[in-house]
Amino acid sequence: MSVTSGASTYMIFRLQIDKELTSLGDIAAAIERTSGDIVGIDVISSSRASTVRDITVNVSDQAHSKLIVESLQKLQGVKVIHVSDRTFLVHLGGKIEITSKIPVKNRDDLSRVYTPGVAQVCTAIAEQPNKAYSLTIKRNTIAVVSDGTAVLGLGDIGPMAAMPVMEGKAMLFKEFAGVDAFPICLDTKDTDEIIRIVKAIAPAFGGINLEDISSPRCFEIEERLKRELDIPVFHDDQHGTAVVILAGLLNALKITGKQMSDIKVVVNGIGAAGIACSKMLLAAGVRNLIGVDREGAIHRNKHYDNPHWTAFAQLTNPNLETGSLPEVIKDADVFIGVSAPNILKVDDVQSMAKDPIVFAMANPIPEIDPELAEPYVRVMATGRSDKPNQINNVLCFPGIFRGALDCRASEINEAMKLAAAQAIASVVTDEELNETYIIPSVFNQKVVEKVREAVIEAAYRTGVARKRLRDSNKE
Amino acid sequence: MSVTSGASTYMIFRLQIDKELTSLGDIAAAIERTSGDIVGIDVISSSRASTVRDITVNVSDQAHSKLIVESLQKLQGVKVIHVSDRTFLVHLGGKIEITSKIPVKNRDDLSRVYTPGVAQVCTAIAEQPNKAYSLTIKRNTIAVVSDGTAVLGLGDIGPMAAMPVMEGKAMLFKEFAGVDAFPICLDTKDTDEIIRIVKAIAPAFGGINLEDISSPRCFEIEERLKRELDIPVFHDDQHGTAVVILAGLLNALKITGKQMSDIKVVVNGIGAAGIACSKMLLAAGVRNLIGVDREGAIHRNKHYDNPHWTAFAQLTNPNLETGSLPEVIKDADVFIGVSAPNILKVDDVQSMAKDPIVFAMANPIPEIDPELAEPYVRVMATGRSDKPNQINNVLCFPGIFRGALDCRASEINEAMKLAAAQAIASVVTDEELNETYIIPSVFNQKVVEKVREAVIEAAYRTGVARKRLRDSNKE
Repeated sequence: MSVTSGASTYMIFRLQIDKELTSLGDIAAAIERTSGDIVGIDVISSSRASTVRDITVNVSDQAHSKLIVESLQKLQGVKVIHVSDRTFLVHLGGKIEITSKIPVKNRDDLSRVYTPGVAQVCTAIAEQPNKAYSLTIKRNTIAVVSDGTAVLGLGDIGPMAAMPVMEGKAMLFKEFAGVDAFPICLDTKDTDEIIRIVKAIAPAFGGINLEDISSPRCFEIEERLKRELDIPVFHDDQHGTAVVILAGLLNALKITGKQMSDIKVVVNGIGAAGIACSKMLLAAGVRNLIGVDREGAIHRNKHYDNPHWTAFAQLTNPNLETGSLPEVIKDADVFIGVSAPNILKVDDVQSMAKDPIVFAMANPIPEIDPELAEPYVRVMATGRSDKPNQINNVLCFPGIFRGALDCRASEINEAMKLAAAQAIASVVTDEELNETYIIPSVFNQKVVEKVREAVIEAAYRTGVARKRLRDSNKE
Repeated sequence: MSVTSGASTYMIFRLQIDKELTSLGDIAAAIERTSGDIVGIDVISSSRASTVRDITVNVSDQAHSKLIVESLQKLQGVKVIHVSDRTFLVHLGGKIEITSKIPVKNRDDLSRVYTPGVAQVCTAIAEQPNKAYSLTIKRNTIAVVSDGTAVLGLGDIGPMAAMPVMEGKAMLFKEFAGVDAFPICLDTKDTDEIIRIVKAIAPAFGGINLEDISSPRCFEIEERLKRELDIPVFHDDQHGTAVVILAGLLNALKITGKQMSDIKVVVNGIGAAGIACSKMLLAAGVRNLIGVDREGAIHRNKHYDNPHWTAFAQLTNPNLETGSLPEVIKDADVFIGVSAPNILKVDDVQSMAKDPIVFAMANPIPEIDPELAEPYVRVMATGRSDKPNQINNVLCFPGIFRGALDCRASEINEAMKLAAAQAIASVVTDEELNETYIIPSVFNQKVVEKVREAVIEAAYRTGVARKRLRDSNKE
């Protein structure tokens, strides 16, 4: 996953306030003088002479928080007891738990869920392994697997520090799509070992979501696991991003009245996400797609040490364009950046074809500041939640796995990903569609259901669904 | 774990009943004629002419169930719609789920539990790995790891078929002690690979419960993991059983008025559980312990191919007794069987010292039929829930991990296991103690709390607790 916006945060200031010496008004004024935005006040305890209150304030960063403490300390009759961060508070003890679906209150319960009754259930699965889908958690459970090497914009922070992201992802799987997801953070970076481990733990799971594994190892890990496991394996950083970008592009093209087959697309940043996104766009009908990276436009007449670039060159840039981004961006209809901050200039946008579409996904700072670009683009999308058209993987992964699990798909193939993109795009109706609304909100409840239906349909159409259709419709 | 009793089960017979032609009385009579025990009747639907009812019946086995169907079909006006097994019904879709501790209902929630807020939490852990204990699920989460090679009495049924047991165990961890436990069933039997995998997945976990891994691989796996990980690793089949047997023996000796240091103990079956149990008893003060297996009494003057027997011989049988079970059982005060059905004869019991104590743990059929033994033993315990004095691991594992997690123990050592055994024994008061009540019920709510306290105390005493005492007392 990628960081999706600038990071203001909530701090909670616990204050002991002497009623004689100061008032809540004084305190509020002191906080507001620092531009702190008070969002909540709670009384913790109160006596005749003093009260203890928690003041929750939206602050821009730690320095801002320090400034607030200093100005509070200057007030007569105010003692700052402690300062806590609401983000840290919600993480205390972790964000997920494992619960029993049924209570175990007496010997009768115990004899059914554990010994001796469980023995018959084990025997039934040993005789017919397929019964694991009905008699264990397999049919609704996926592993969120990371080695912690490419976490957010933070890079290789290790498996322990990656856990809060994976727990968060598990929460979203459950909250948005009812999928049980468990975080598996691996203390190894060895490609072969990661593959062996994921294969070994697979019996309990109905799917594998790979997450935040650095490139190029992520390609081999995903490819081999897809080949060697009979359950869906999906590297969300590649395909989730690609699906949601395609969804946005489908709607952006409706606005500009252009066709996939006619447009020139420049993808800047040919890493894991850039390659996956390009492949999705080609599968969706784009013919003229040019990848740009540090060495300029990638084309098949050049030699690359990176085998992924060599393969990429074979699929793209039919007109063999060469040169740097400012050169190849000329007359492009679409720019998709999955690269670095401020790499796209206003001049570049001005040299694009009429009605430019710009997807600037770098995080938290996009390839071009949306405000600078605004006068020159027709449609602009970013990864930020505080701007219109947020491209967010949360639109994809819950529904795509919900669909794959419900039809017991053996994989998540191109047709299913395309169907997911079309389903996400379809949530925005023609009446609603406009330059600042090409993609639904992650909280739009239609998204998961539409994605699920489309993915199931595509899975049956392409023959990878293993559940009888009647059964999967019932769920 | 081991199977803990005979296996009657509940079947649910869904019947369409023609009100004109038959009555519930006729149906009950038909079921009772087969010795079926009706435990519940539910109305599913009702019309003027007929009703549909679910009749839940305790049956002895599948043949019994078939017999009931046949006798119901003979009744006029009764149609058997379907028959389902309550044990299977509670397993549908698995028995555990992963849930969010806090809701994610709006962008504000999302920004705290996921991006962008989560980045600060990840960074905090990357800088101070110890913070994983406060900011992730680590402090309350353990892995229940099995390779499915020694499941119940079923043997090597594989990882998929082992899942219902591991899910059941996860339920019990949560229900009895609030511990989050996730089942990891491994599709490999390779000792080195299992060790590597468990080490690699360890970052998310505060402890490892090894389960149903066959001997002798279980020894090396546990020993190496204990050495190479800094979180508790506990093979429940060995140590859980040993702790509960010791708890029972502590109370049984109170009844017979004998001392650990004076008794002669014969342990029959020197596999994983037998060795662990013997070591526990030696640690508890037993001096004269003799192990018996297929080759008779194990003693240090004989050569064994099995290195675990060689080591065992060094620790036991100080008087170098030789011969088969009937020979060495003479004058023994205690027999502990973790072996095979009906291996101990009435004659053997009669040759024991005064007030024989017999623990016959083989399952579901003990080393001696409790009814045959009854006239000759003073105290008898088995693994069966339908007999007095059930030795059940559920008495140990929830509390021992609860304590280890709460004080952040780096391991579960001998002192902690001894403390757990004493705590379990202490739940039975002197007033309550008698020949048929030496061990508390698994549903006795004092057990977990007493075990937890004793384990924490022992962890601090032996220097393996890593949480400040003040903090762990607060929880």
